Amino acid sequence: MVMLLRSCCRVLLPHIVTCRNHHVSAKGKRCLLSRLYQPRSLWEVKASETEAKPNEPTSKSQKLMIKAGLIRPSSPGCFHYLPFTVRAMEKLIRLIDKEMQDIGGQKIDMPTLSSAALWRQSGRWDLMGKELFRLMDRHNQEYCLGPTHEEAVTHLVASEGGINNKELPLLLYQITRKFRDEQRPCFGLLRGREFYMKDMYTFDISDESAYETYRNVCDAYTNIFRALGVRFVKVQADTGNIGGKMSHEFHLPANIGEDRLLVCGSCDFSANVELLQHNEKNCPVCTGQLKETKGIEIGHTFYLGTKYSHVFKATCYDSQKTPFIAEMGCYGIGVSRLLAASLEVLSKEDDIHWPGLIAPYQVCLISPKKGSKESEAITISETLYDEIIQSVPWLRDETVLDDRSYLTIGKRVKEAHMTGYPYIIVVGKKALETPSLFEVRSHNTDEVHFFSREGVIDFLQRVKVI
Amino acid sequence: MVMLLRSCCRVLLPHIVTCRNHHVSAKGKRCLLSRLYQPRSLWEVKASETEAKPNEPTSKSQKLMIKAGLIRPSSPGCFHYLPFTVRAMEKLIRLIDKEMQDIGGQKIDMPTLSSAALWRQSGRWDLMGKELFRLMDRHNQEYCLGPTHEEAVTHLVASEGGINNKELPLLLYQITRKFRDEQRPCFGLLRGREFYMKDMYTFDISDESAYETYRNVCDAYTNIFRALGVRFVKVQADTGNIGGKMSHEFHLPANIGEDRLLVCGSCDFSANVELLQHNEKNCPVCTGQLKETKGIEIGHTFYLGTKYSHVFKATCYDSQKTPFIAEMGCYGIGVSRLLAASLEVLSKEDDIHWPGLIAPYQVCLISPKKGSKESEAITISETLYDEIIQSVPWLRDETVLDDRSYLTIGKRVKEAHMTGYPYIIVVGKKALETPSLFEVRSHNTDEVHFFSREGVIDFLQRVKVI
Repeated sequence: MVMLLRSCCRVLLPHIVTCRNHHVSAKGKRCLLSRLYQPRSLWEVKASETEAKPNEPTSKSQKLMIKAGLIRPSSPGCFHYLPFTVRAMEKLIRLIDKEMQDIGGQKIDMPTLSSAALWRQSGRWDLMGKELFRLMDRHNQEYCLGPTHEEAVTHLVASEGGINNKELPLLLYQITRKFRDEQRPCFGLLRGREFYMKDMYTFDISDESAYETYRNVCDAYTNIFRALGVRFVKVQADTGNIGGKMSHEFHLPANIGEDRLLVCGSCDFSANVELLQHNEKNCPVCTGQLKETKGIEIGHTFYLGTKYSHVFKATCYDSQKTPFIAEMGCYGIGVSRLLAASLEVLSKEDDIHWPGLIAPYQVCLISPKKGSKESEAITISETLYDEIIQSVPWLRDETVLDDRSYLTIGKRVKEAHMTGYPYIIVVGKKALETPSLFEVRSHNTDEVHFFSREGVIDFLQRVKVI
Repeated sequence: MVMLLRSCCRVLLPHIVTCRNHHVSAKGKRCLLSRLYQPRSLWEVKASETEAKPNEPTSKSQKLMIKAGLIRPSSPGCFHYLPFTVRAMEKLIRLIDKEMQDIGGQKIDMPTLSSAALWRQSGRWDLMGKELFRLMDRHNQEYCLGPTHEEAVTHLVASEGGINNKELPLLLYQITRKFRDEQRPCFGLLRGREFYMKDMYTFDISDESAYETYRNVCDAYTNIFRALGVRFVKVQADTGNIGGKMSHEFHLPANIGEDRLLVCGSCDFSANVELLQHNEKNCPVCTGQLKETKGIEIGHTFYLGTKYSHVFKATCYDSQKTPFIAEMGCYGIGVSRLLAASLEVLSKEDDIHWPGLIAPYQVCLISPKKGSKESEAITISETLYDEIIQSVPWLRDETVLDDRSYLTIGKRVKEAHMTGYPYIIVVGKKALETPSLFEVRSHNTDEVHFFSREGVIDFLQRVKVI
């Protein structure tokens, strides 16, 4: 069988691309909702059908994300992320990257396959028990699927002969999939077996500088959660099987949360109930009343000390080349969990509310129904769409035209609210008046405005994207 | 033990971020080479020491990437990607995203853990043999680590009840880690056990439209390889254990390649030698002489037909709601392999050459040596750095200041060539003349220019980034 084909051997000048963002629609093409893969098979069914199997706990974010065509279960604790979710995840990752890099974080990428030898060296091969996914390769070498990477990163740094004075503090991080064989995965992306985590590992020469690094990372975490507009609590925490000298957890207060927190109504106090003695009802700081809330853990910081650097001999050198065992910290954010937890705390029962900055798309523009009185306004909606992406170029890839003109406006507005677009623009009857007026709904603040064409553009100028 | 902490419960207005790129240095901060994690422990050693163990094959890209502090081996066929490599990978991913989305591709993200049941349904659980990494969870359920996702995606699409007319053709893709338990992993990122792959899966309603989709994806591949400025060959290929009706491979011709290709010196003909009958020496099209070259496979396209859609019942509906079994295609690019293969074919023996567009950083600015005659120019180099990122804002995060002024200029220029910065600016003696002159070296074209301050800025204006 002779197989032959055209050759493409010409060496051409590189085709140059000037954009720096991920999702670039082809120029001049409209982003049509009818083309987007957002399976709606469940939109019409009763809520009960979107729920998990009997006895399987479920959560609001899980139900909404499945119903709105954002995720699909594949096996217990594992999900397909559909296009809307990937867009939101990429934005969340950009936000985290920015904050990590602003404090000097450098991004690396370590393998999922993690050799048993490393885990035996730290003593965690046995300690991790059934939560570790374990496997053997064709040569009967043992590996686990990394749930965290203290061993890997410390061994890496140590094997380079240590860290010189100028490189200190060294902050290495990655945003990769992690694996944990949960006994009972549940709540969708809130407690999965395969999930995205941002894990940072820091190396300092002294206690003092390590504490400063610890504070810097905590401040960056605060920036991230504030940028998302979610209410969060930071509490001191147990160091668990990670180990170390000090640890804090970041939680989003939510009924579905698996940690019980006590928050004082009168002062700044808050704590994980597990760590309080007896059954305290009053704040130990101001004696104000403690209110119990549950929390979803979205971040965890550890001051490790020399626990791992001692085992793997990771060394820092001062300006006189004197070696010191590195003081380490490790810092996690459950990235996919943070995404779902944000929806959990911000959404209404039937409508998703995204943190504005990471919504998959910022704007949904809804055209009139074909055959309706206002159907002549269909072309007006197309022109308005083109004007928006012309005048507000950063919304070029953020604006969806709901072109399903066989559906009523009402039905599409309802779906748009459910999907959670921060801004919904309806081209209805008033678009045929002189001058044209358009309804602009701000989903997250529940405001409705009628704007002229210029008013719409002015309004959208203030929408920020990442 | 009472644990209590400050609470951060205030709900603040979201902190707005306007940038859209990944790597944003804090404003006003200089990106100093002395701060970057690029372990240089091997830079001074003899080439032989960077080579693999006896009998383990090695490659130019592997040696250079290890020597220049870009990657580090963790276990056979698995590598840590260090910060420079992560930056290049992210750029390559942006390029691929752009091209995939320009042809209507929608990005999804499917789990690594892939249930054995799906693979049994397609018959590939046994067929894949030892190349599949297999494991069991705590409930003794069998999984593999997905090397490819035909089963998963077809099952996903089928379980949504099929694809309606308006959504067609449906092009879903992901860029994720894949796993293959190679008998003999080698050549660094060229043949690993854990690697990044872009895999796209397409669904069409007819043969005819499926062929059109196939051509569109091949064209997008051509755009990607051209944007990288690498010489490539497209040959018809065997469908192997993926199966289907038609298949092509994309290769970068290179001696280290594992496929033997025959390329005609007189016409467009090229073919994989495995697919030629006998031992042909002459081109079957023009009878010109065939020259043998080896190729590194970087892309593979398959027209699958209904092989998987039939098994999983993935259906398309036409405008009359008549169902058709979907005509599928699948399309891979080995992303981490493409990165390494580009270095393999572009680099010199001692110097890395990146495809300009995806170089980790575009510009390296080298300051004078402390204590040398031109040491007064150190402040000039800092000023020039600040002017560059001020006047060419897209180079803000692309310009490194080699502040290691304890080293000679010569040594740092040599290291900069080895790392492969496309543009190296040397602030030397001539910077102290009136007006100041700066040496600008274009690494990929081997040109050297002396420019004034304004000349440098003008020159850098034409550098494109992604």
